[in-house]
Amino acid sequence: MSQSVFVADLTWVEYNARVSSGKTIVFLPVGALEQHGPHMAMNPDVLIPTAISARVAERVDGLVVPAISYGYKSQQKSGGGNHMPGTTSLDGHTLTLTVRDILKELARHGVRRIVMMNGHFENSMFLVEGVDLAIRELRWDGITDFNVVLLSYWNFVLNDTIKAIYSDDFPGWDFEHGGVLETSLMLELHPQLVQMEKVADHPPPQFPPYDFFPIKPEWTPPSGTLSSAKAASAEKGRLLLQVCVDGIAEAVSRAF
Amino acid sequence: MSQSVFVADLTWVEYNARVSSGKTIVFLPVGALEQHGPHMAMNPDVLIPTAISARVAERVDGLVVPAISYGYKSQQKSGGGNHMPGTTSLDGHTLTLTVRDILKELARHGVRRIVMMNGHFENSMFLVEGVDLAIRELRWDGITDFNVVLLSYWNFVLNDTIKAIYSDDFPGWDFEHGGVLETSLMLELHPQLVQMEKVADHPPPQFPPYDFFPIKPEWTPPSGTLSSAKAASAEKGRLLLQVCVDGIAEAVSRAF
Amino acid sequence: MSQSVFVADLTWVEYNARVSSGKTIVFLPVGALEQHGPHMAMNPDVLIPTAISARVAERVDGLVVPAISYGYKSQQKSGGGNHMPGTTSLDGHTLTLTVRDILKELARHGVRRIVMMNGHFENSMFLVEGVDLAIRELRWDGITDFNVVLLSYWNFVLNDTIKAIYSDDFPGWDFEHGGVLETSLMLELHPQLVQMEKVADHPPPQFPPYDFFPIKPEWTPPSGTLSSAKAASAEKGRLLLQVCVDGIAEAVSRAF
Amino acid sequence: MSQSVFVADLTWVEYNARVSSGKTIVFLPVGALEQHGPHMAMNPDVLIPTAISARVAERVDGLVVPAISYGYKSQQKSGGGNHMPGTTSLDGHTLTLTVRDILKELARHGVRRIVMMNGHFENSMFLVEGVDLAIRELRWDGITDFNVVLLSYWNFVLNDTIKAIYSDDFPGWDFEHGGVLETSLMLELHPQLVQMEKVADHPPPQFPPYDFFPIKPEWTPPSGTLSSAKAASAEKGRLLLQVCVDGIAEAVSRAF
Amino acid sequence: MSQSVFVADLTWVEYNARVSSGKTIVFLPVGALEQHGPHMAMNPDVLIPTAISARVAERVDGLVVPAISYGYKSQQKSGGGNHMPGTTSLDGHTLTLTVRDILKELARHGVRRIVMMNGHFENSMFLVEGVDLAIRELRWDGITDFNVVLLSYWNFVLNDTIKAIYSDDFPGWDFEHGGVLETSLMLELHPQLVQMEKVADHPPPQFPPYDFFPIKPEWTPPSGTLSSAKAASAEKGRLLLQVCVDGIAEAVSRAF
Amino acid sequence: MSQSVFVADLTWVEYNARVSSGKTIVFLPVGALEQHGPHMAMNPDVLIPTAISARVAERVDGLVVPAISYGYKSQQKSGGGNHMPGTTSLDGHTLTLTVRDILKELARHGVRRIVMMNGHFENSMFLVEGVDLAIRELRWDGITDFNVVLLSYWNFVLNDTIKAIYSDDFPGWDFEHGGVLETSLMLELHPQLVQMEKVADHPPPQFPPYDFFPIKPEWTPPSGTLSSAKAASAEKGRLLLQVCVDGIAEAVSRAF
Repeated sequence: MSQSVFVADLTWVEYNARVSSGKTIVFLPVGALEQHGPHMAMNPDVLIPTAISARVAERVDGLVVPAISYGYKSQQKSGGGNHMPGTTSLDGHTLTLTVRDILKELARHGVRRIVMMNGHFENSMFLVEGVDLAIRELRWDGITDFNVVLLSYWNFVLNDTIKAIYSDDFPGWDFEHGGVLETSLMLELHPQLVQMEKVADHPPPQFPPYDFFPIKPEWTPPSGTLSSAKAASAEKGRLLLQVCVDGIAEAVSRAF
Repeated sequence: MSQSVFVADLTWVEYNARVSSGKTIVFLPVGALEQHGPHMAMNPDVLIPTAISARVAERVDGLVVPAISYGYKSQQKSGGGNHMPGTTSLDGHTLTLTVRDILKELARHGVRRIVMMNGHFENSMFLVEGVDLAIRELRWDGITDFNVVLLSYWNFVLNDTIKAIYSDDFPGWDFEHGGVLETSLMLELHPQLVQMEKVADHPPPQFPPYDFFPIKPEWTPPSGTLSSAKAASAEKGRLLLQVCVDGIAEAVSRAF
Repeated sequence: MSQSVFVADLTWVEYNARVSSGKTIVFLPVGALEQHGPHMAMNPDVLIPTAISARVAERVDGLVVPAISYGYKSQQKSGGGNHMPGTTSLDGHTLTLTVRDILKELARHGVRRIVMMNGHFENSMFLVEGVDLAIRELRWDGITDFNVVLLSYWNFVLNDTIKAIYSDDFPGWDFEHGGVLETSLMLELHPQLVQMEKVADHPPPQFPPYDFFPIKPEWTPPSGTLSSAKAASAEKGRLLLQVCVDGIAEAVSRAF
Repeated sequence: MSQSVFVADLTWVEYNARVSSGKTIVFLPVGALEQHGPHMAMNPDVLIPTAISARVAERVDGLVVPAISYGYKSQQKSGGGNHMPGTTSLDGHTLTLTVRDILKELARHGVRRIVMMNGHFENSMFLVEGVDLAIRELRWDGITDFNVVLLSYWNFVLNDTIKAIYSDDFPGWDFEHGGVLETSLMLELHPQLVQMEKVADHPPPQFPPYDFFPIKPEWTPPSGTLSSAKAASAEKGRLLLQVCVDGIAEAVSRAF
Repeated sequence: MSQSVFVADLTWVEYNARVSSGKTIVFLPVGALEQHGPHMAMNPDVLIPTAISARVAERVDGLVVPAISYGYKSQQKSGGGNHMPGTTSLDGHTLTLTVRDILKELARHGVRRIVMMNGHFENSMFLVEGVDLAIRELRWDGITDFNVVLLSYWNFVLNDTIKAIYSDDFPGWDFEHGGVLETSLMLELHPQLVQMEKVADHPPPQFPPYDFFPIKPEWTPPSGTLSSAKAASAEKGRLLLQVCVDGIAEAVSRAF
Repeated sequence: MSQSVFVADLTWVEYNARVSSGKTIVFLPVGALEQHGPHMAMNPDVLIPTAISARVAERVDGLVVPAISYGYKSQQKSGGGNHMPGTTSLDGHTLTLTVRDILKELARHGVRRIVMMNGHFENSMFLVEGVDLAIRELRWDGITDFNVVLLSYWNFVLNDTIKAIYSDDFPGWDFEHGGVLETSLMLELHPQLVQMEKVADHPPPQFPPYDFFPIKPEWTPPSGTLSSAKAASAEKGRLLLQVCVDGIAEAVSRAF
């Protein structure tokens, strides 16, 4: 029998044996195809939550279904903006329906415990709505014990870790687009997808306390990143990965 | 001619004279019907941004169209949760379509400068999507000079003001649901809708760094508020109002 | 405890105490932002049904939730047409979804008796559809005792009243756009929003027995009104208000 | 070459020769499958407007495309209600999208003059919306000379004819469901689909001036008809047909 | 009592007597308005499945509801392409919703056995989806014994018949657009809608094993047909009709 | 600069340099998460078209964007049915919107040549519709030179290859679900995801020439496969891969 935590690696017979009781926790990573600066490949938002999901799944004897690879439109103040080349996004309703459909199918298989692991800031509310629609329709089917933990992995980075990694230069999660956090994690997980010599070392942009549409391209640094990844390292990535995996594993175990 | 900033108070002839040039800034408040604790009426999220919109409109010679009165589903960690009595919410797609439709109509009238003033945290991303859809369809109609400032008023409360109001007890905006900020603003704007003696004086709840669905009612304090409004006062409301109106008026003037 | 019939003025605790039994009748006014001629502000379609709802609610110990402020597209032969400045309308599907969502939320609160009070002719069928979708989905949730009275207030103006008000010049409800009925009611309810000296005193336009799309602007009188409001008066408004409130209160009491 | 006015009887070559100039008027009948009492088959709402369309098309050298066979939900006060057996209806949005799609395709063929001939009262507003969506999207495609006449055939029955047919017993169009008008027309057009001996001869029901949902089946006469067809005759049908065909032919000729 | 198998010819009382037990099989033909070459009228895809439905219904004591007259977009390699004049198609979602709505209404009447008889290749998957949505929603209404047979009539033409009709020149069903099969059936059923002297006698086009969008008009033969109908005859039509009716009648009897 | 053909491995700067001219061909694999029998992992429908896309992209100097990982509902006669554990599918409309959104984003980047490589039979028509909607909306944006090749890789398996692989036992593509074709390709591409000893060696099921809904589970072999993969081998996989890559590379080169 396959030992993989990835559902895509299993036969249906193996999968069925694992999920039909409803006790196995199933992780659904949700990411994006989005530019992350001149130094990094374009889907850390998929790769990082997939990697964390796999590690947590190993600890809690869970499984990971394939990530939702495309996410909601990049916002200028958190992702550089949806005008950037390479960034490839869905309408909000499309993403919501995708989440709804996948969750309902997992419920049909017998899964009752889901962890949606978000890797792309802008997805959040459309995931919430997808979960809400799924739970509503499952209720119409008489299924009322279907539970979802929805999280963004960076919310498990504790203040101590932030201090250890950023000293006093933490720009805030909004500015952590292609910055130290994501770059360090990618250096640890997929070093071949990072080219540190191409990091754009600029200060975070100054954004006003509102959004403007259509966006003004000049607000986004030419690099597309919102803070400098110069201080990123695989070592920091290791630390971040550990704190996220530990925190999420514990949270998930307690939640279910 | 009517001196009101409220479009609903104008005749179409008056309105037309004001907006056909495209220069007049039009404010669209977006709120919610949502419980705000045992001490406060249920639509501060409409009343506060409407009041701020009116004051800013007076300063910048703008106009205010009727608020969108119903908003997106209350989230447990920012609004107590959508299971509470009285909270009356729309599906995300419904809200998005409403925004899209209204903006396109304003564009048809000749309006080219919009300020969407959000009063309900959970609305944000669905407003973003509504703006995006409107701009897309207007582009298909050959209209490419339609601009929207989208803001949540509390983002204009400066750090100094936070310190002045909360000393060191600022719970974070997420917890400001029925708390000092909203209650103070309501005491200043609509004192008859606040019953200070009914304030539930409890510490902010401890939420885990994830969401759980279906929500667990026991996570929400029985009051429905997420922080205590005991320290609220009309004076603080006056200060908050002033800093918001000042900040937004300046921002809007600079944006357009 | 607040004595207001307006739900937006209540705390959730007060609201909950009123509606959880399912017996309280809840009124949902539905209007529009629509030009009503050079002599009248642009939302009588919200203000009039809201006022009637409040008066009837007082009689039947009911409550009034915030109006749906934006309605379906103005039709040329009943509202002057959707090309007019100021008229700000929703797509039909958007309005239908809004109604569906609000009704379902009220049902979640325990409400079982709704009166939808329409103030805008063009809304009617989209309200019907919204009610139908809500009842369908509530049925899927096992709720089968949710009842809705859907009415347009002018249908309660009796023939005697029509005769008293119009003598023999009643143009038909279709032509009552910005005419004697609405203007009189506004003179009674919100006199500051009417400028009688600006009434366009023209005969009703001659419309063919079909609609033409895209509409021909020249079919609509330049004023935007479809009949003259010259004969309007607060006194007539008082009479109209009384007959509507009396009739609707009686009808509602009998219906539930 | 086929002499038929029905597009479904033509080859595409014949059709193309007729419509590519944009001058030919194309008729689109819209009906319903709806019970019409114990004495009449269930689609007069398709058959009557199709027959009128064909006759008018002959006069104005136009064409008739296949009818939309299913319509919006029957309303209790105009069609007996959607709870009746046999009545088979679409959601409003489905009907609207169907109209939108068909009109856009006709425009692609080069058609610029459409007459939508409605035979089912409840369809009206969803047809309006379908036309509006089609015109909007055609505009996005640069097509701005696409015109639609939307009509319900009974609006061409003049007062003289009403008097001739009903003497003083005209119940109003709302009650003309399975009554003298429709039955007479069917006796003239499709006598084999009428069984006069089964006419339910009852007075029109007394409806209150509001709708109630879910509908109360007892409001609808057991027959499903809203007025008695006893006085129907082929001769009256002939007269009605003539006045409709004459009136519509003249209106259409003037409109385009 | 009407002996017609067509529901549109029945009164609701007759229909109700037939379907309320749930045992009667109801046929829903689904077609298209689509060019079928210079020699044939444009709705064989409606007429043929309607005719087969009627004949099978007679055998199995079933009924036939009105056809869905407009179908999904013609594909170049199976229908010549949706750029052709006359071809009038729906968006996929529109067709799916239409199917869903009609099936749910039939279920409301008590029907439990449906045969959807498809006459237009491109419809298939959108019909599948419409059936799936209907069954899902019916399940939410507690109806779990609603069954649908979905078929395309040409799948009942046996290999022997193909050999008898085409000898060795069977081009494959994809190319049977306006070819021998459809033309022969129309010659048998509606000879007045075929003009054999206008048949375009060309070999089937050579299509690559992929689709290209936007389609390349030059791939489609100028005639719009994909194979020659020259060998068509009423006699072959009679044979095809018989094999389809026999096969479907047997299949349906066994299925239910 | 990264030499990868996978867009997800590139920085946005690298990607932009490749696509901004519009000449680079971009491949979009579309698959499914679907059971493929007791001997094979659950996403060959993603892995195979991704692998073929990559190989063809190398030949034509193209790029590959991340696959759409979830597809349309498995049909009983081509995929075993959507009742099987593990099979995780989207509603048709969800898939269509996903395709529409991704294609429009690629067009925004400047891409003008797309190859959609389908690996899941049931997706086809919803992909067609997604492409059609994208092209329609791009046209509204003034983009008319955006071209899509849509293909299913198995259509490039030539008759000679079929004979070489199956001798005379080719069951037809419909039955090739978890059979020799897919299993051989997986043995060549991802041998660790195949367990040949678990192949269910049964003859293809006998399906009637219609679909039945809700599906009858007993029609599907207990294994979930529709033909035996016993004769699969990596060598056959190599041959299949080669013929597909060769054929598609040539077709794509000719198409653009």
